[in-house]
Amino acid sequence: MAGLHIRSLLVTGANRGIGLGLVQHFLRMPNPPQWIFAGCRDPKGQRAQELQNLASKHPNIIIIPLEVSDPASIKAAAAKVGERLGGSGLNLLINNAGIVKLNTLDTETSEDMREIYTTNTIGPLLMGQAFLPLLKKAAQGSPGSGLSCSKAAIVNISSIAGSIASAFGWELMQVTSYRCSKAALNMLSKCQSLAYKEHGILCVALHPGWVQTDMGSSAGHAPPVTVDDSVQGMLKVLSSLSEKDTGAFLDWEGNVIPW
Amino acid sequence: MAGLHIRSLLVTGANRGIGLGLVQHFLRMPNPPQWIFAGCRDPKGQRAQELQNLASKHPNIIIIPLEVSDPASIKAAAAKVGERLGGSGLNLLINNAGIVKLNTLDTETSEDMREIYTTNTIGPLLMGQAFLPLLKKAAQGSPGSGLSCSKAAIVNISSIAGSIASAFGWELMQVTSYRCSKAALNMLSKCQSLAYKEHGILCVALHPGWVQTDMGSSAGHAPPVTVDDSVQGMLKVLSSLSEKDTGAFLDWEGNVIPW
Repeated sequence: MAGLHIRSLLVTGANRGIGLGLVQHFLRMPNPPQWIFAGCRDPKGQRAQELQNLASKHPNIIIIPLEVSDPASIKAAAAKVGERLGGSGLNLLINNAGIVKLNTLDTETSEDMREIYTTNTIGPLLMGQAFLPLLKKAAQGSPGSGLSCSKAAIVNISSIAGSIASAFGWELMQVTSYRCSKAALNMLSKCQSLAYKEHGILCVALHPGWVQTDMGSSAGHAPPVTVDDSVQGMLKVLSSLSEKDTGAFLDWEGNVIPW
Repeated sequence: MAGLHIRSLLVTGANRGIGLGLVQHFLRMPNPPQWIFAGCRDPKGQRAQELQNLASKHPNIIIIPLEVSDPASIKAAAAKVGERLGGSGLNLLINNAGIVKLNTLDTETSEDMREIYTTNTIGPLLMGQAFLPLLKKAAQGSPGSGLSCSKAAIVNISSIAGSIASAFGWELMQVTSYRCSKAALNMLSKCQSLAYKEHGILCVALHPGWVQTDMGSSAGHAPPVTVDDSVQGMLKVLSSLSEKDTGAFLDWEGNVIPW
């Protein structure tokens, strides 16, 4: 992680799984960020206990109430983060919050399709819009003309299940609503990379691997990748990204995934 | 079109543009279908006048009130079509209805994202579910073991704007909500092809070209492809499809488009 020097970042869905793992790994860096904003739907809830414990020991963790399916919650979160940062910008936005429902193609409903798209795709779009001023500010305040995650970046946690070319895992899980939302998220990442390049912001979609989290295990299978390995891999990938990588879809080991 | 022998088909959004062009071209075939179900949001409206005139001259056109963003409307349409067909199945479902809003990434809203996804992506999903029994019946009633559009098929009218790899036309139109909905529609097509293959149903996503329709011209540009050329090309492509093509993303000239 020698290449990652981040002053401030925000992770959505930071109370569990990969989100919590990201917070923990950023804390352990030789030069940890000054601000780690941990977005969390219900900071007072049982499921945020581990994050709360961590924050009580590390004053650079700021827990931010954030429901990414609610535009008002996103706006309030951006205002809070901006206030905390004072005049400085946000280097890294990691859109990690996501949901899945274990439907088959036959059992998908309009409601499930809409709910999953709202959290997995519209959420990252609105987060990008709301935090754009802070990301721009970080880019403007960083030296050099190239793009990097240390400067300003949006990282969308996608999934190989969203790879249309591979249709990975279809025999195990059809989850069409999830696949559609992640294919759309990949498109969003591409759009963000094209629109935000001129502002000095790098944008990528990352597949974290099939990880041992509540979501990864939800179909009763045993995922092969630990949270630690996934997060460590992703941070290594993030540290290596430059201008040529904006708009890419990569896995936690740095491999390019076909759309 | 020598290879297309279709007894019954349904086209959504059949009152204008490509949908109306498809109805006209099917009528002109040497052996026109016995049933052309023309789905249309508002059959009594001004915008359905041309379709109404056509139907008054051709009794094999049955206009079906159909709002693909409304699950109840889809179910009612499937019941009506099933009743008309008596005991026989539906050979071809063409999910053509679609909408666009000329937003930039900055002006996209949660509401627009949801509205466009509901019509362009969820609509085709629910149409596939509702018409599956009729498509299965057509497949069972057709000789031979391979897949073809003459036997049973779902054709989703997508767009090269939904190609993540190409990001076609970004400089002219950002339309992120539309691009995301079409990338998701491409994923849906892949999912349908995997789930419905065992039922003998071929599924593809087609890019009709940038066509001289109200939608194609909505940004004030002059599209290069006429409705006639687009529809003629697509029907030629459909007539050539076999088992190996299910799950593909092709343009109106038969070229494979990258996801």
